Amino acid sequence: MASSGGVDLDEVYSFALDLAKHAGKLLDDAWRARCDGGLQSDHVEKESAVDLVTQTDEDVEAFIKQQIASKFPSHKFIGEETYSKGGSKEYLIGHEPTWCIDPLDGTVNYIHIFPMFCVSIGFILDGEPVIGVINAPFLNQTFSACRGKGAWLNGTQRLPLIRNPIPPMPENAPKGCVFSCEWGKDRRDQPDGNLHRKVESFLNMAAEVGGREGKGGMVHGVRSLGSATLDLAYCAMGAFDIWWEGGCWEWDVAAGICLLKEAGGLVTTANPPADPSTARIEDAKLGGRLYLAIRPAGDTEHETARQGQERTVREVWRRVRHLDYPRPGV
Amino acid sequence: MASSGGVDLDEVYSFALDLAKHAGKLLDDAWRARCDGGLQSDHVEKESAVDLVTQTDEDVEAFIKQQIASKFPSHKFIGEETYSKGGSKEYLIGHEPTWCIDPLDGTVNYIHIFPMFCVSIGFILDGEPVIGVINAPFLNQTFSACRGKGAWLNGTQRLPLIRNPIPPMPENAPKGCVFSCEWGKDRRDQPDGNLHRKVESFLNMAAEVGGREGKGGMVHGVRSLGSATLDLAYCAMGAFDIWWEGGCWEWDVAAGICLLKEAGGLVTTANPPADPSTARIEDAKLGGRLYLAIRPAGDTEHETARQGQERTVREVWRRVRHLDYPRPGV
Repeated sequence: MASSGGVDLDEVYSFALDLAKHAGKLLDDAWRARCDGGLQSDHVEKESAVDLVTQTDEDVEAFIKQQIASKFPSHKFIGEETYSKGGSKEYLIGHEPTWCIDPLDGTVNYIHIFPMFCVSIGFILDGEPVIGVINAPFLNQTFSACRGKGAWLNGTQRLPLIRNPIPPMPENAPKGCVFSCEWGKDRRDQPDGNLHRKVESFLNMAAEVGGREGKGGMVHGVRSLGSATLDLAYCAMGAFDIWWEGGCWEWDVAAGICLLKEAGGLVTTANPPADPSTARIEDAKLGGRLYLAIRPAGDTEHETARQGQERTVREVWRRVRHLDYPRPGV
Repeated sequence: MASSGGVDLDEVYSFALDLAKHAGKLLDDAWRARCDGGLQSDHVEKESAVDLVTQTDEDVEAFIKQQIASKFPSHKFIGEETYSKGGSKEYLIGHEPTWCIDPLDGTVNYIHIFPMFCVSIGFILDGEPVIGVINAPFLNQTFSACRGKGAWLNGTQRLPLIRNPIPPMPENAPKGCVFSCEWGKDRRDQPDGNLHRKVESFLNMAAEVGGREGKGGMVHGVRSLGSATLDLAYCAMGAFDIWWEGGCWEWDVAAGICLLKEAGGLVTTANPPADPSTARIEDAKLGGRLYLAIRPAGDTEHETARQGQERTVREVWRRVRHLDYPRPGV
């Protein structure tokens, strides 16, 4: 038995896997019902025309909350939808055993029935995500991880997928990397606003080497899925080398961060420090809203995996702008 | 029997479905073998660091070509890899029965084992794609269509997915639309080159309404998958409302165009005409390398499906720049 501060992690992991299976089934039933003409317009706007909540979000969150309360009544629960209704978005994760849930990540995708949506279930101890389960039912993909037990696709394929050996980070990263990023919800057309800073950063990563006054990264590809959770899952899988994003909340990333770290990935802040080439690379703060993730990597003769990941972090920082996503109330 | 100019379309469709199943199995076996450490570096650069071909591309194309030659020896065959090796990229599709194949669309995704890759099999009569089968084995998704028989997901779900009724185009499109686009392979950092024209267009589509000097489209989401074939498939499914791209070849889109049209979608040119608000909206020319696709739509009291699609085309044209993708040899 893996016991951690009075919590039986094996028991919690097994419960989380089962919970993700049932919650995923609810999502699966819901999109299929919509194909037959049900609930076509079950969404309402939250803060803007691209910030949406559906009845499905609320139903799935209520189901998950009830299941957890019944099984682990002493655990704290933080879910996207209950949170949003509360008004404040203070950071509420402390040391106690806490569930951090997004009942439906990729809500816009779900509304349009683009397959990249999922339920994301994270369990946090001492402020650190130690269990993560993500179920994307339209893709038949369940990603899961528990501290010390590795990260898995559908319970059978260990992540990253390519692992004999795990490829090192490309020598000239970000060249050779798949770069994942999101346009997000802040669409204000302000010359130095988040939208323009993002686009400038994307362009630096994409442009030919030598272009953009030396910032051209010539990445292998630029991908945008519309789901922070699945961006992290595909980093853990090794499919995305780099994910860079601002504006996420802890329920978007709690499960994914556990998954990525168990797979051997690194996650730090999106915003470059004053000295990007020498700054200490610290783990991202859950709740910091700014994330830069690097996939699991292998060692080479000349470089450890971690050195290759840190080199990549610094090369990304050199090419991206600061993003401005404050924490309301902070 | 659906006979068309001496061709039995039922027989060809049935053969194409079977072919896609077997070719998809080859792709599936290949990525799984790579997970176990095989063939990690089976790709070489074609025209640039982001234009790649793998041994898998070549093996799958050889398999498909051999199967077709054996079953339909009189049919013409055009495949991405045989084409590339020939040097010239003249447009070679005429009136005769022609197979137009991409053995592996989304090669960069395949190399990184991001699930958005597929085999694309198109069959063309009198210059028009009349059969299309797309198999994305990691996603367990096969899309298929034959003229007059509708478009299908996995042979069981008719496309578009939401169809009782099919939603009309949003009243304020592109607001409310999921916009799919690709960064592509032309990464030259030239002030008025394709990369900058694309990014300017993406930004216009994404920015708030009223922004970008009136061009802000406030789309629901911006998605980039790295597969033109799957972009078209998700338009046919109704998940993507708009796909706008330049630089594709006919093997990237032949099957997808058949799928989209059978589902009820529209496909025209990416480049705005001189009079975008009044120009006649013509079908995209296969081989024209410039595509703007609109999903299947429903009628409203005030507007037919086609009128809603054309209104959306004009709103996109108003926001995007001309792209420059000539046809070599033309």
